[in-house]
Amino acid sequence: MALLYLSTPTRLSVWQPLFDAEGETLIAGEEAVTDPAEVTAIACWQPPKDLSRYPNLRAVISVGAGVDHLPPMPEGVALSRTLAPGIEGMVRDWVVMASLMLHRDMPAYLDQAQRGEWRGHPVPLAASRRVGILGMGRIGTLAAQSLQALGFEVAGLSRSGKSGVVPMFPATDFDGFLARTDLLICLLPLTDETRGILNAKTFSALPKGAALVHAGRGAHLDADALRAALDSEQMSTAMLDVTDPEPLPADHWMWRDPRVIVTPHIAAQTDAAEGARHALSVMRALRDGTPLPGEVDPARGY
Amino acid sequence: MALLYLSTPTRLSVWQPLFDAEGETLIAGEEAVTDPAEVTAIACWQPPKDLSRYPNLRAVISVGAGVDHLPPMPEGVALSRTLAPGIEGMVRDWVVMASLMLHRDMPAYLDQAQRGEWRGHPVPLAASRRVGILGMGRIGTLAAQSLQALGFEVAGLSRSGKSGVVPMFPATDFDGFLARTDLLICLLPLTDETRGILNAKTFSALPKGAALVHAGRGAHLDADALRAALDSEQMSTAMLDVTDPEPLPADHWMWRDPRVIVTPHIAAQTDAAEGARHALSVMRALRDGTPLPGEVDPARGY
Ligand SMILES: NC(=O)c1ccc[n+]([C@@H]2O[C@H](COP(=O)([O-])OP(=O)(O)OC[C@H]3O[C@@H](n4cnc5c(N)ncnc54)[C@H](OP(=O)(O)O)[C@@H]3O)[C@@H](O)[C@H]2O)c1
Ligand SMILES: NC(=O)c1ccc[n+]([C@@H]2O[C@H](COP(=O)([O-])OP(=O)(O)OC[C@H]3O[C@@H](n4cnc5c(N)ncnc54)[C@H](OP(=O)(O)O)[C@@H]3O)[C@@H](O)[C@H]2O)c1
Repeated sequence: MALLYLSTPTRLSVWQPLFDAEGETLIAGEEAVTDPAEVTAIACWQPPKDLSRYPNLRAVISVGAGVDHLPPMPEGVALSRTLAPGIEGMVRDWVVMASLMLHRDMPAYLDQAQRGEWRGHPVPLAASRRVGILGMGRIGTLAAQSLQALGFEVAGLSRSGKSGVVPMFPATDFDGFLARTDLLICLLPLTDETRGILNAKTFSALPKGAALVHAGRGAHLDADALRAALDSEQMSTAMLDVTDPEPLPADHWMWRDPRVIVTPHIAAQTDAAEGARHALSVMRALRDGTPLPGEVDPARGY
Repeated sequence: MALLYLSTPTRLSVWQPLFDAEGETLIAGEEAVTDPAEVTAIACWQPPKDLSRYPNLRAVISVGAGVDHLPPMPEGVALSRTLAPGIEGMVRDWVVMASLMLHRDMPAYLDQAQRGEWRGHPVPLAASRRVGILGMGRIGTLAAQSLQALGFEVAGLSRSGKSGVVPMFPATDFDGFLARTDLLICLLPLTDETRGILNAKTFSALPKGAALVHAGRGAHLDADALRAALDSEQMSTAMLDVTDPEPLPADHWMWRDPRVIVTPHIAAQTDAAEGARHALSVMRALRDGTPLPGEVDPARGY
């Protein structure tokens, strides 16, 4: 029973001692595999093309928070995505920062600063801003709690709409959710159902002048629709940590539009030790026959 | 018994009905005063030069949050500054935003965005950043709570060092406070003791690479010392809502330095209704002989 490690050497220097300490076998790189039957799990960003080489493979562990970039797994191989409180807190911090930046007109102030223009705009109370969080999973829930504590009027939308820390809408009441949302935050996983969900129809269902904070995946957003909505003033501003493609080309309009702020997919980074601990918990679960931490439901896609 | 109102017509349209509803007399403008003996309080940003015209004057109410711009009051005239939960929450929001922006390298990302440069920097955990709040009054306490809830390691400094929501330092242990502070937040009132407190000596007592968030008053900061500390990399970045002078001249270096973000004194705006309610509470206290809300201690200067 061993884990095949296919990630960076820097991370390896953190993983190896943690695996050693638990007496768990880690094989670094496919070339180091002597007995393919030994490999029970693979930790990677992209798995090897031919998984049939590993007859006893039972789990693929994504070292990132998303799994949308991975191909379907063969029968009998589970997919686990890294759960890490560190990642979730980092994305929450970025989302709270981005929400406050749009709430408090930072795009306008940053634009004015380039001209040395000292001019204030009316200061809104957080309580007067209705925040709507699309995707109320681990990260959405953390963001909802922080924004609610700052006084924003927060609601969430999830597939099930099951009750949470804030008033919830089910996916079937998307329009009701959008109609009460001045600041839309996307924290959805990328699935067949959510691809392109930030589109012209969605923007038009928001109150005029709404703002967008996006930390899901680039392919959730129709960038042309965003531009049109900004031009018609249906949308006021947007802050994006994810784009399509990534890296965003240097000459893309979003880099230079004063109404849009782009960061280069840095809302979170997996801490190497947290990643290793997650992989170790997957190895333990495989050994004990207990449910796999972070297991992805292939039908739902997240 | 009447309040002499010396502020904008826009605010007046909010104050007048609130005063009417409480049966309290409001006189709008000095030219409208028929009997100066009637005037018990004056609400203003700047009081009239000659207060001796009003023999029964007992309080001057500053319609802003600070009183550092006001001359000393004559014997028997108290100074009250507007207390308003709205203002305090607004400054808190700006401070949390600015702290997250420096914590998460927004100055670098905004600079890169101008060149369309997609390049990430290591993402720190909030728990790894030690925040130090200079001035733990109403606003400092709110900011401390919010930043602590996001996971930052927060400590505060006040004159007394009396215990609060986070570990506290007294003003006499300024160096101890600075030595453990990676992100310094200034929320002090401007007094003789605090003028110029953000100077070369203070910056050099911080750990190398520290950041500054400043929402106190422009005259707390020695801007030349900040520039030198940025140039020597003793300080990394700064975000300022207050400058000296205000407005900051369009050709000032701080507008264009990528390590500094300036906003035009917009951390808070007094909500007109909150201001009127504060003034009404002062009128009631004068009538009842109870302590004046927001009374400034002339010896301390805040
Ligand atoms: N920018 C970055 O650096 C970064 C880093 C990490 C994560 N992310 C993004 O954040 C996403 C969320 O992460 P997480 O850990 O919070 O995920 P999670 O715990 O799996 O939560 C996903 C949430 O989305 C909801 N959802 C899924 N499909 C939906 C649909 N069709 N309609 C409405 N709601 C739907 C789920 O509803 P139910 O509750 O009903 O299942 C759940 O509330 C990731 O998938 C990734 O895209 C970005
Ligand atoms: N940028 C904006 O738009 C904006 C808006 C509103 C306010 N402000 C600024 O924020 C400041 C704070 O407001 P606030 O309502 O929180 O004030 P506050 O309640 O009066 O609190 C002042 C705090 O500063 C401390 N302090 C005073 N002198 C000190 C000294 N020499 N050394 C160390 N600590 C000292 C006090 O210590 P003790 O607790 O021991 O008395 C107290 O903790 C205002 O004075 C103003 O400068 C800015």
